[in-house]
Amino acid sequence: MLPLALTLGDPAGIGPEIALAAWLARGGLNPLPPFFLVADPAFVERAADRMGLPVPVAEIDPETAAEVFPRALPVVALPSGTAIAALPGRPDSIHAGAVIESITAAVGFVKAGRAAAVVTNPIAKFVLTRAGFAHPGHTEFLAALSVAPGRTPPRPVMMIWSEDLAVVPVTIHVPLRDVPDLLTQDLVEETVRIVVHDLKTRFGLPEPRLVLAGLNPHAGEAGTIGREDRDVLAPAVARLRGEGIDLRGPLPADTLFHARARETYDVALAPTHDQALIPIKTIAFDDGVNVTLGLPFIRTSPDHGTAFDIAGQGIARPDSLIAALRLAERLARNAGIAKAFGGAVIPISAYAGRPSQMRHFDPDDEL
Amino acid sequence: MLPLALTLGDPAGIGPEIALAAWLARGGLNPLPPFFLVADPAFVERAADRMGLPVPVAEIDPETAAEVFPRALPVVALPSGTAIAALPGRPDSIHAGAVIESITAAVGFVKAGRAAAVVTNPIAKFVLTRAGFAHPGHTEFLAALSVAPGRTPPRPVMMIWSEDLAVVPVTIHVPLRDVPDLLTQDLVEETVRIVVHDLKTRFGLPEPRLVLAGLNPHAGEAGTIGREDRDVLAPAVARLRGEGIDLRGPLPADTLFHARARETYDVALAPTHDQALIPIKTIAFDDGVNVTLGLPFIRTSPDHGTAFDIAGQGIARPDSLIAALRLAERLARNAGIAKAFGGAVIPISAYAGRPSQMRHFDPDDEL
Repeated sequence: MLPLALTLGDPAGIGPEIALAAWLARGGLNPLPPFFLVADPAFVERAADRMGLPVPVAEIDPETAAEVFPRALPVVALPSGTAIAALPGRPDSIHAGAVIESITAAVGFVKAGRAAAVVTNPIAKFVLTRAGFAHPGHTEFLAALSVAPGRTPPRPVMMIWSEDLAVVPVTIHVPLRDVPDLLTQDLVEETVRIVVHDLKTRFGLPEPRLVLAGLNPHAGEAGTIGREDRDVLAPAVARLRGEGIDLRGPLPADTLFHARARETYDVALAPTHDQALIPIKTIAFDDGVNVTLGLPFIRTSPDHGTAFDIAGQGIARPDSLIAALRLAERLARNAGIAKAFGGAVIPISAYAGRPSQMRHFDPDDEL
Repeated sequence: MLPLALTLGDPAGIGPEIALAAWLARGGLNPLPPFFLVADPAFVERAADRMGLPVPVAEIDPETAAEVFPRALPVVALPSGTAIAALPGRPDSIHAGAVIESITAAVGFVKAGRAAAVVTNPIAKFVLTRAGFAHPGHTEFLAALSVAPGRTPPRPVMMIWSEDLAVVPVTIHVPLRDVPDLLTQDLVEETVRIVVHDLKTRFGLPEPRLVLAGLNPHAGEAGTIGREDRDVLAPAVARLRGEGIDLRGPLPADTLFHARARETYDVALAPTHDQALIPIKTIAFDDGVNVTLGLPFIRTSPDHGTAFDIAGQGIARPDSLIAALRLAERLARNAGIAKAFGGAVIPISAYAGRPSQMRHFDPDDEL
């Protein structure tokens, strides 16, 4: 299989050290898939030295990454040859060009068939925007890179995935006050269709089972606590079910995420950022993976930020990056199987195929 | 110690059967505190017969409940002698009078020093409102009962408690759209002060450690995602800290509830119902307890509704009621100790006394 392309992320954050730590964890009973970092090789070597990590660095092309991977961390230099002199914990917009170039190059390798998937290290938006970065975020930039310049990019959908739970927030980094009006029937339907498409084609779930959490407490209790659940979410669910999609909802968000409830679906969608992110970060804080659905290539990312405050201290955990690398490989393997054999891919859901009956317990209609 | 007074709840819901099941689970290594049910004894006997549960029912006064408890379920008749003929799963407003009378009588027993605490079975508001019930909910009715008729009742605060996590939603059963405007600095401060007061006097925590979740994603990221966190919540936290209260926040809600984060506080407050209820129902679905703070007496309740859809089928779990009975006893014991010895009560928090350092990980400033 092709290697994975790992971006630099913000060089002053924990990206470099978790990449080194992930490479050190490559062996064992469950070996990591080969990956290469897109960065300045000398910077990566200095980072390893500074952290006292025994990581030989090999400057290579994507084509030799898999061969080198067992004995050295493969690093593909930035096309411009830019040298990076960042220090841990010292974010500086002077590095914005290198950060952006690493992302652009990684996407280029995947589009050119030289890498299997893009795995991105965390970036800090304020560092890039100060340098003139025009995209609203990392994911939107990746969507823009996925099409020819000037073309309308696809709408990316963020899923946070772990072995025990996968969630999709329908709205993301917006003020809570704006969510009720942003949450249109069209937005819900479009999001669900993108999720279903990628679950079928990439996650190997021919009949994915979805649930949608309500916006209001107790999913609005039949319209008595807010109207959006009855007037917006319920019609969206009805239409999608009419298309043959196995989607239930809107269901009370608070009773949707305990162990028995999770067994009844593959992915839970929720109207707000916190409704979706709270449960997965509660049960899978260290090894959640951010997967972007709706792109023409596979992209995963660790589910945490740059953590400038702990960068360089040797305490950042590589668990989430490792989980992101593993998931990217599984998705890429499925894509390869689908291409070669026409679709018989391996299900990626802890709950695939389990019965869909949910233990039904009234929401606390009166506490 | 005095027995606990358990209300009937809706007689067509799962209240009667979980009361019977709790009594059957009274013995063993961790015996349940003595409690009595306030209901029609003949109705309770028929419920046991219908369910095939070997529960002898003894009609008693509160004073003999503890003595009878080991060999029979003590039932104190409704003062009016009203007979109840409810069937499981058939809610009917004809029973509203008995439901209300059971609550009123239980509170009366506690106020008269004949019971240690009130534990309430779930009610369904629509059943009572159809019969003219004028209070916005169960808890508000209990607050009204705690003062003389016509006096302004205290403001009750809902806490959901489990061994692993305790949460307080600052707003509860209101449309999400209304939360940003309801969330005033005064509301936050008043809520925190009530929580702190009860944690000190009832939960035995001389210096309770609190956290407050932000309203917006990532707690608003310094005002860039909504202004309420910076303009309303942060000033409230500053003022409360100035009063010597150990409160941190507003913190991103999604990174606040994993195991290591939970060790750093005793109670987490959150602006919305779902932000608070999602994490506790994710990790403690069966044994969360609803505790009302701010009342002049102790009140706990199971953390679920009437569950009309499964009533009478023998599948309702008594776990949450059992946890509610245990917590009521611990709180009542503390109150007794405080009265007798002036305050040296037993801490009720899995995390009491643990260090307050939180592993600090940047919120995902860019996903």
